[in-house]
This record gives sequence, C-alpha cells and structure tokens, in this order.
Amino acid sequence: MIRIGIDVGGTGIQTGAVNDEGIILAEESIITRTDIPFPEQIRNMVDSVRRIIDACGLELKDVASVGVGIPGIASKETGEVIKCANMGWNHVPFRQEWEKLISLPLYIENDANVAALAESIAGVSAGTSSSVFITIGTGIGSGIILNGKIWSGAHGIGGELGHVILDLDGVPCSCGNHGCLERYCSATALIRFAREAVQLFPDCSLLKAVDGNPDRIEARTVIDLARTNDPLASALYTKWISYLSQAIASVVNLLDPEVIVIGGGVSRAGAFLLEAIASRFPQYVIFKDQPLPDLKLASLGAKAGIIGAAMLN
Amino acid sequence: MIRIGIDVGGTGIQTGAVNDEGIILAEESIITRTDIPFPEQIRNMVDSVRRIIDACGLELKDVASVGVGIPGIASKETGEVIKCANMGWNHVPFRQEWEKLISLPLYIENDANVAALAESIAGVSAGTSSSVFITIGTGIGSGIILNGKIWSGAHGIGGELGHVILDLDGVPCSCGNHGCLERYCSATALIRFAREAVQLFPDCSLLKAVDGNPDRIEARTVIDLARTNDPLASALYTKWISYLSQAIASVVNLLDPEVIVIGGGVSRAGAFLLEAIASRFPQYVIFKDQPLPDLKLASLGAKAGIIGAAMLN
Repeated sequence: MIRIGIDVGGTGIQTGAVNDEGIILAEESIITRTDIPFPEQIRNMVDSVRRIIDACGLELKDVASVGVGIPGIASKETGEVIKCANMGWNHVPFRQEWEKLISLPLYIENDANVAALAESIAGVSAGTSSSVFITIGTGIGSGIILNGKIWSGAHGIGGELGHVILDLDGVPCSCGNHGCLERYCSATALIRFAREAVQLFPDCSLLKAVDGNPDRIEARTVIDLARTNDPLASALYTKWISYLSQAIASVVNLLDPEVIVIGGGVSRAGAFLLEAIASRFPQYVIFKDQPLPDLKLASLGAKAGIIGAAMLN
Repeated sequence: MIRIGIDVGGTGIQTGAVNDEGIILAEESIITRTDIPFPEQIRNMVDSVRRIIDACGLELKDVASVGVGIPGIASKETGEVIKCANMGWNHVPFRQEWEKLISLPLYIENDANVAALAESIAGVSAGTSSSVFITIGTGIGSGIILNGKIWSGAHGIGGELGHVILDLDGVPCSCGNHGCLERYCSATALIRFAREAVQLFPDCSLLKAVDGNPDRIEARTVIDLARTNDPLASALYTKWISYLSQAIASVVNLLDPEVIVIGGGVSRAGAFLLEAIASRFPQYVIFKDQPLPDLKLASLGAKAGIIGAAMLN
C-alpha cells in the first residue's frame, strides 16, 4: 500500500508518496507560509497530498495513511499540535481541521522522531529494534526507537537529548536553562568555541580562512582545517568531539541502544567525524569492556523526513 | 503460581516466595560469603530456595521460576553474570551452575532494575506502563520500565543514570570518569558538600550536631538540620536538591516516563525530599507547560529486591 509523508520545515513543506520498502515514488515541495491562517496552511498541505496521489495515478482509496513530521510536539490521541514555534502553532487542532478536508487517517510526530523511524526502517539502522538518532546542526535533535517504535514518552515530551543537562551551572540556553547538551555539542557550539579562540590567536589559520571576519566561521571551517592538522582547529575539534562523545556515552549508559545514528548538517563531515567519536566515546561508558552500540552515519539525509512521516502509524 | 525471588546484597542474601499479587509468603536471609568458591555460593542459594519451598508446604512443581537480583550485570540469554564486583564475580556461568543443582527456570537481573520492576507491579508505580526508579544512597542506581518491562539496553549495560555526565570536566568518579551524575546527587555528594562547607563555618550548627567531627556528618545530619531552617544546612540542601532536580528533569526531557520513583536510603526523608524536588524539577524541563511525570516515593523498601526478582521472566 502507498502512504504519504509530509515533512514540515521552516522554509519548505515536502510531501511524498512512499511504498512499503520506504522508496519515494513521487514528491513535491511547497513554500512554508506563516503569513496565512492555520486552516489555510492545512488546506495547502491537503492540496499537495491530492496532487501527489494524482501524480502516482492513484485514488484516495489506494492510500493507507498520511503522516506529518513537525519541528514541535503533538498529541497522538487528539492530533492536536501542542507546540510548533516555526509555524506559529500553539495548541492548534490539526487533525480536526484535516478531517474536514480529506478522509485519510492522519498521524503527527516530532520531526527528529520521524527521522529516527525512517532510518530504523529504511535507512542505516534498518533491521535493528533499538536505536537513538542524533541530529547535529544548529541545535541537537534526537529520536528514540525502542522495540521498533518511536519512544516519545508518556506525555509526548521525551526524546529531547539537546536539553539534557551536560554542564551544571553552564552556558545559558535559549530554552531558559543553563548547561544544556546542545550548547556544547551542536554545530553552533563548535562555532562559538572557534569565535572565542580566534580572539586569542589573531594570526591563526582559522581567521585567515574567513578573511579575518570571525562572524563568517562555520562548523565546516573548523572541521576542514582540523582535517589538515591545523593546531588551533584540531584543538577546538578535539574539545568538541570530547563533549559529543560524553553526550553519546551518557545515552549508552542510560539507554544502550543497538545503534546510535548521527545525522544533521554536521554529519556531512563523514568518516572524519564518525571515527573521531567512535574512538572517543567508549572511555566514558561505565561497562566499557562489554559490546557497545554501533555508531553510524544517517543514510537517508533530507529524505528521512518524508519517509519516516509516511511510516507513522 | 508461586515464584521465588533472591536479592543478592553485599552483606546478606534474601530469598522469598512471592505470589501473583507480589505478596511475600515466606522469606529467609543468609550471610553473603565471598570467601568461598562460586559454585558453593550458588549451592547455598539453592539450599535457601529449597527451604523456602518447604516452609510454604510446596514442592518444586508448584514453583514457576526463580529470579535473582544482583548488584551487577548479567546476560539474559546465557545466564552468565558478566560483572558483580561485591561478589567477586567476573564472567561466571551462573545459570549453568544453577541447572546442575535444581530444575527451576532462572532469571538474573541488575538489582536496581529489579526494584524498578517490583514498584511497577506491586508498589507505588503499579498500573503504569512506564517508570524510572532512582535509588539515592551511597551512589545513584536506576531502573527503567517501558511498556511494562525492564529496559536494560541492547547489550544489558543501560539504566546507569548514576554515570550519565552531569558536569563537564567535573568531580572525579570511582568509575574513572569526571562529572558523573552520582557525584552531585547521591547521599555521598550531600555529605561531601557539607564537609567542605563546615571548614568555612567552624561555628555552624552542622559541626555542633556531630560534636565537631566532620567525618561523622551523614546525609541525615544535613537534611534534619535543613528541616529546622538552619541557614547553612538549608543552603547545602537547596544546592543538592537543585542538582537532583536537574538530573530528574534530564530524565524527563529524554524519557518522559509516567512516573519517577525515588527510593534508596535518602528516600526516608519522605515528603520533605519529595516536595523539594517536585517544586524544583519542572523549571528544568523543556516543555514545562505540559503534563509532567508524577514524582513518588518508593513504597516497597528493602522488600522490592525479593518481589522484583520473583517477577522476572
């Protein structure tokens, strides 16, 4: 049977028809509009779904369900979106509005959970029953798969690894707390470490690489220089890898999944990133002489959003 | 049907017959002996099991299974105890030895996981499908129950909340790492904070309460004085509660169970402890305006070890 997945992002909304093997048969993208009322946003998504069904030469009855991945949280029971800051949604009756427009079962989930599910069914963690997906970008997102299913908690507020405390009385976080894990392990954190460090080393290669403008330092700038063994970039990278490894070891000490999947923009650093973490995290695991979770790079990239959403049930 | 639970502790080994309601029908205790070879230790446990069956007026065929809770980790598949420092066990073939002596199905689990299971079936979290049990004593132990079952990870090394990193580059831990959660949230941590503080305040009530000998400060000494609003004890208690609350909020942000159960020696502080944590932890939760896990005190006390072990399957 065909299922439809919708990936709601800050700039675009991707919709795709997915088969049982997790292959996308047709897809389209519409611009994310936050300037229109919520019912119109839903109507645009429904129109997109109808066009995709047409494009596949199918009818409504050939489609099993529609899943939506959102950068926020929703109630599984009522289909209400509880919070989705990017879209300006706060307690909006998504499923209720949806059901006025199209008669297809609807599931809504957090986007990191959706990506975790996609990888565990059609991606790098396929065939495992437990995995933790960690997406490293501007922040840190995560999705937990246990016994083959998304675990998002009893109240739907779990899976937020980025806001686990990693440093008591640490750096302030946008969430209002101090010392949240994403302040030390995200791409943003690596950039912060670099911008602080270049103040102390005005002649460093890092600053030369951005024509002397610290605001232009990206995570990639540091990582690319670390690959060349530049001393300052290597030191910054090693510190950041140490923090990321401690975060991953904490996940192992608490949850011990079969696989830990690394995704997000930073994962484009590939084997250089994976090998650095893999060689470092075991030292922070309490039972380090036991078999440990495999560490793998996400394989579905941006498509995980559509595929995982389609897999929701 | 009757099931037997064995709680292997550092000083004593408790064995009990438990019915389907989690009621202990008969129990006995033998001294923990680490001076005898491993097969003799197992033989002593089997003898204890036989006496308990006799005491209930039952025969072997009336007993469904035997469960053993150990302060260590074991393989569910092979019944091998992988590590149990207190007993001096390192990769010992527990089930293999057991099967030579008695024909009863045997299950082995970590003792904090066993206590978590007991509370979730016959204790304060009965009727819930997800809970995290946190035992606060010399260290921090924990057991995770998801979908009504113990979650100890894909390799059996999960559920170790005490060794999740809470403070980057923090206080050294006996496990070899720095900044482990139990260094900030255990009874031992509260005692450490107090012993450090009394050096600065030689006239404090805390030091008077132990006749001027800092080595005699216990967690209870600080908590009892904090109850009377003694300024120094209250400040220490508040700091410790803040750390404990951040640890609990991290569990909520990641796992969001229905209930968090507080057990261990420190839980004897009762409502004074529970209310302090309950009023503090929500501020560290990312989705703090949502329904949050209930926080409860463990209700089975030391009996959780026998009851939970008997419930293993």
